[in-house]
Amino acid sequence: MSDRPSLARSREELVALLAPARAQGSRVGYVPTMGALHEGHASLVREARAQVGESGRVVVSIFVNPLQFAPGEDLDRYPRTLEADLDLCAAEGVDVVFAPSPEEVYPGGVAAGETSETTTVDPGPLATQLEGRVRPTHFRGVLTVVAKFFGLVRPDVAVFGQKDYQQLVLVRAMATDLCMGVDVIGAETVREPDGLALSSRNRYLDSEQRFEAASLNLVLRAAQESAQWGQDVALESARAELRRTKGIDLDYLEIRAADLSPLPAEVPEGTEARILIAARLGSTRLIDNLPITLGASRAPEAQEGVR
Amino acid sequence: MSDRPSLARSREELVALLAPARAQGSRVGYVPTMGALHEGHASLVREARAQVGESGRVVVSIFVNPLQFAPGEDLDRYPRTLEADLDLCAAEGVDVVFAPSPEEVYPGGVAAGETSETTTVDPGPLATQLEGRVRPTHFRGVLTVVAKFFGLVRPDVAVFGQKDYQQLVLVRAMATDLCMGVDVIGAETVREPDGLALSSRNRYLDSEQRFEAASLNLVLRAAQESAQWGQDVALESARAELRRTKGIDLDYLEIRAADLSPLPAEVPEGTEARILIAARLGSTRLIDNLPITLGASRAPEAQEGVR
Repeated sequence: MSDRPSLARSREELVALLAPARAQGSRVGYVPTMGALHEGHASLVREARAQVGESGRVVVSIFVNPLQFAPGEDLDRYPRTLEADLDLCAAEGVDVVFAPSPEEVYPGGVAAGETSETTTVDPGPLATQLEGRVRPTHFRGVLTVVAKFFGLVRPDVAVFGQKDYQQLVLVRAMATDLCMGVDVIGAETVREPDGLALSSRNRYLDSEQRFEAASLNLVLRAAQESAQWGQDVALESARAELRRTKGIDLDYLEIRAADLSPLPAEVPEGTEARILIAARLGSTRLIDNLPITLGASRAPEAQEGVR
Repeated sequence: MSDRPSLARSREELVALLAPARAQGSRVGYVPTMGALHEGHASLVREARAQVGESGRVVVSIFVNPLQFAPGEDLDRYPRTLEADLDLCAAEGVDVVFAPSPEEVYPGGVAAGETSETTTVDPGPLATQLEGRVRPTHFRGVLTVVAKFFGLVRPDVAVFGQKDYQQLVLVRAMATDLCMGVDVIGAETVREPDGLALSSRNRYLDSEQRFEAASLNLVLRAAQESAQWGQDVALESARAELRRTKGIDLDYLEIRAADLSPLPAEVPEGTEARILIAARLGSTRLIDNLPITLGASRAPEAQEGVR
């Protein structure tokens, strides 16, 4: 176990802790989190370390951002486990943990889904699709706090999980569009042995829900395995798998381009795309996604035999 | 006359030109402009130099930003005078001029009032008031391009003119809210001998309009001089002055708090506020503003004698 990382609670402490690295020209790698850290976050930290090397600094922020929660979502019950988080960061060799209060991040004031500050980052039309259909203000909250943290940490590289794929796409677009000079890396999703993507929200599940939750990944893998036959077949395979499950309330199941733009019905053989799912188990909402390589789509009438 | 400044046309050239300053830890002062430079801009450059000192670097950008113009506004006829601008920058000791093409700033594509890029900066409710009432997309375009340029230049300090006071307030709020680490300075408005605020758009005026244009400042000064008697008296003095003019089509004349929030009818004696005016002379739209120190407002019924 390594030494505990330095803990910054204020902006000033963060800047002071990073000043030597800046003066030496060391690279800074950054992993933004909401805490409740697990092996998925550990893999993001290892990717950040790989990006900046032993001479670089790895910064983890732990902040449950009120602005990305809607009123009535799980802001209050979201798990807060700072001591355990610091242990994980120590074990992974994190240099600096930034764990500010809401007032420190939003001196103008913040509550679930709203801030009294005036400037926010508008993520554009993708933010009201997929996750944004049920969480219409979510990504504005995410991009605004990530912009703030990029400004405070000034990282060379930031690592996000592919598990929150839409977030990854939108953060990458923001970093590019607003010329933030941050290289945004998407790290592969870490999974339980049965395929369930690691998530801090998995701890909300009871044992029956936890058993059924593995189906999300099975549904996506069914689509992945039949994607050579085109989008329609892939989606039908996924739906067939979904019909075998119980207690899963589907929000969406969609195949999109890798940048999450809508795909035309006909795509070239070998198109790299993404399949995304969101579903509720009781009151817990889970998401997952996988890359899929599409074969040529055929018109639905040609697929009757397959159906 | 100093040497000509280094001219960067691309992001890469800009970064390369600023690399030595970064390595030395020199401070960078930045003046964003749309070109057509005049003595007002020269004063901003001198302020930037004063901020960063002789060892610092002063960067001027020259970019007529399509995103902040609405379709039908003067994007196409806005004056472009790069050679004369470079002469002025040389005379003022500017180190680097960044004069990119629209494609360089918006690789995703841009036209008047719209971009194919996805991320923009949302300036919040003030952006639809005052200037924003007639130019509802203007400040989103301004903040988005300023965010891009702050990301590319990474200045320690940026200087904006108080003449565009609402822009100054919104840029300052953005730099604070998004933790950009840029100190935003507002430099005093430079005026012609008759009081007209310098503006690149003044060259649109014919000689009669140019004569009448001085009235904008006279109107504001009339308010400033009677502000000790309260907001209502100040506004009435301004309106009386305005009635003496001809050919001036008033857009708005308002007294606001220094941060442009609305003022209550009653304010404490000595409140530092701002009076702002926008008006058209023919097809040319001009704006101006002044600080005013308010005496205690009295209820309108107490002011009958003054009116």
